[in-house]
Amino acid sequence: MNDKAVQRVVECVPNFSEGRRPEVVEEIVEAIRRVAGIRVLDYSSDESHNRTVVTFVGSPEACEEAAFAGIARACDLIDMEKHEGEHPRLGATDVVPFIPISGVTMEECVEIARNVGKRVGEELEIPVYLYEEAATRPGRRNLADVRRGEYEGLKESIETSERAPDFGPARVHPTAGATIIGARMPLIAFNINLGTSDIKIARKIARAVRASSGGLAYVKALGVMLEERQIAQVSMNLVDYVKTPIPRVLEMVRREAARYGVPVIESELIGLMPMDAVLDTAAYYLQLPKLERSQIIEARIWE
Amino acid sequence: MNDKAVQRVVECVPNFSEGRRPEVVEEIVEAIRRVAGIRVLDYSSDESHNRTVVTFVGSPEACEEAAFAGIARACDLIDMEKHEGEHPRLGATDVVPFIPISGVTMEECVEIARNVGKRVGEELEIPVYLYEEAATRPGRRNLADVRRGEYEGLKESIETSERAPDFGPARVHPTAGATIIGARMPLIAFNINLGTSDIKIARKIARAVRASSGGLAYVKALGVMLEERQIAQVSMNLVDYVKTPIPRVLEMVRREAARYGVPVIESELIGLMPMDAVLDTAAYYLQLPKLERSQIIEARIWE
Repeated sequence: MNDKAVQRVVECVPNFSEGRRPEVVEEIVEAIRRVAGIRVLDYSSDESHNRTVVTFVGSPEACEEAAFAGIARACDLIDMEKHEGEHPRLGATDVVPFIPISGVTMEECVEIARNVGKRVGEELEIPVYLYEEAATRPGRRNLADVRRGEYEGLKESIETSERAPDFGPARVHPTAGATIIGARMPLIAFNINLGTSDIKIARKIARAVRASSGGLAYVKALGVMLEERQIAQVSMNLVDYVKTPIPRVLEMVRREAARYGVPVIESELIGLMPMDAVLDTAAYYLQLPKLERSQIIEARIWE
Repeated sequence: MNDKAVQRVVECVPNFSEGRRPEVVEEIVEAIRRVAGIRVLDYSSDESHNRTVVTFVGSPEACEEAAFAGIARACDLIDMEKHEGEHPRLGATDVVPFIPISGVTMEECVEIARNVGKRVGEELEIPVYLYEEAATRPGRRNLADVRRGEYEGLKESIETSERAPDFGPARVHPTAGATIIGARMPLIAFNINLGTSDIKIARKIARAVRASSGGLAYVKALGVMLEERQIAQVSMNLVDYVKTPIPRVLEMVRREAARYGVPVIESELIGLMPMDAVLDTAAYYLQLPKLERSQIIEARIWE
């Protein structure tokens, strides 16, 4: 009599090429928020990037609907011919990742990305590129590669077979440009502060733990300096907390720091993380074989 | 635009003196479940104890209403003159603890216990004793002390000033007996398995960490043997995870075990724990100054 299916939650973080006209941003966010079952967790605009990042969550079906609604509204309100900003971009809605949070597989998020891409291509006539887990070619997994040349460059190159879109016409939309849609794991921004003011140590540790220089497969890391506090920090993005769990990263950093006689003095989480990442962390350190969501009193209420 | 008040959740775990007539148990559980906003998480009956434990959660107001509804139904359906079972008991509804889970203080749970006690005393004419955090006398904090003499003994001693009830008449209800109502922290049943088959080591560790023999203030512990696996276990009840956090208990057990050259091989959680206990555990080991509920993606949806 106790078991309930886990609530199905997808997160979506669309980036729109408008960060200077708040009334336009509000209209786009409102189009997303109006979809039943959607909760907008956050949105923030950057004037110099001229760009707004929206974070919302909901069921797979609601997220599909809300993402399309936001893209359609941005298509009406943003003109790429007049857009300028520091951040690279291909279109009015630049990039739309779907992220599995709970009770949803990566494959389902790829499916959502394809469904939305198809509708955007057919109904709005905006060319769509699928990226990351939804990519149809290896060269399109990486966002920076897909965005190469930006809006202005794509206008000319889109007719080449290499740049043929996954959905929609092989011509850039006259005002909305092109849109990149895909699926990826949640990103956890996790920093570790060291008991030293020597940034060289933080950099050495960052090199040891990050994938690009031989470390853990789903870790991006940099050594940085917290100038006010004179503390060196290993600043990280954990891009797959299931395959490379947070505790393993922390313990590797701790081990590397010990080589230099440096302790870990604290860590910080920037933004949000999924509940499963917290449960996995507690289970790891408590040496519990598994800590299930159904063992948390409040989760039993919510689901 | 992000902050939401934390959902107010109280847990209530009433114990009813009926474990042999499923149809009676169903009627009592149904009276609780019928209250709007209540979720019954679990109920289980023990035939030899002739007793049923129900676990439900809801807002403070809903829990107050549901507890009264369950007590009233049990008063109609259970006759203590005919009740026999191995477990000590004072009444048809034997004991009703209210437990703060989230967004609710212990003081508020004490207030709920008093409100329900007053109604039970006045409307149902059942004498009520307040216990644990709601106790009105030091000698009534401990449940076993309040239950001394059981239903049969209380019939005679209730007229003494020492046993005067906190609410209701100074005579035992002719069928429902008396009821013990109070407030306490959630109890976390947490066991640690050792890399040894020597139960004496588990017993020594239990003595070191439990309050009764000089250890941590909110820990009850026993050394037990998992016979099939030939593993010695420190079996614990953590009765205040805020004041005596789980990681501190584990690390003390680990330290004591190391005196005998014995490792901790795994731990197990029996039943449920509150989300704050998981967040506090993750924060402790990750060296995060604090991990807030609002930093968990799903918690932002639910609240």
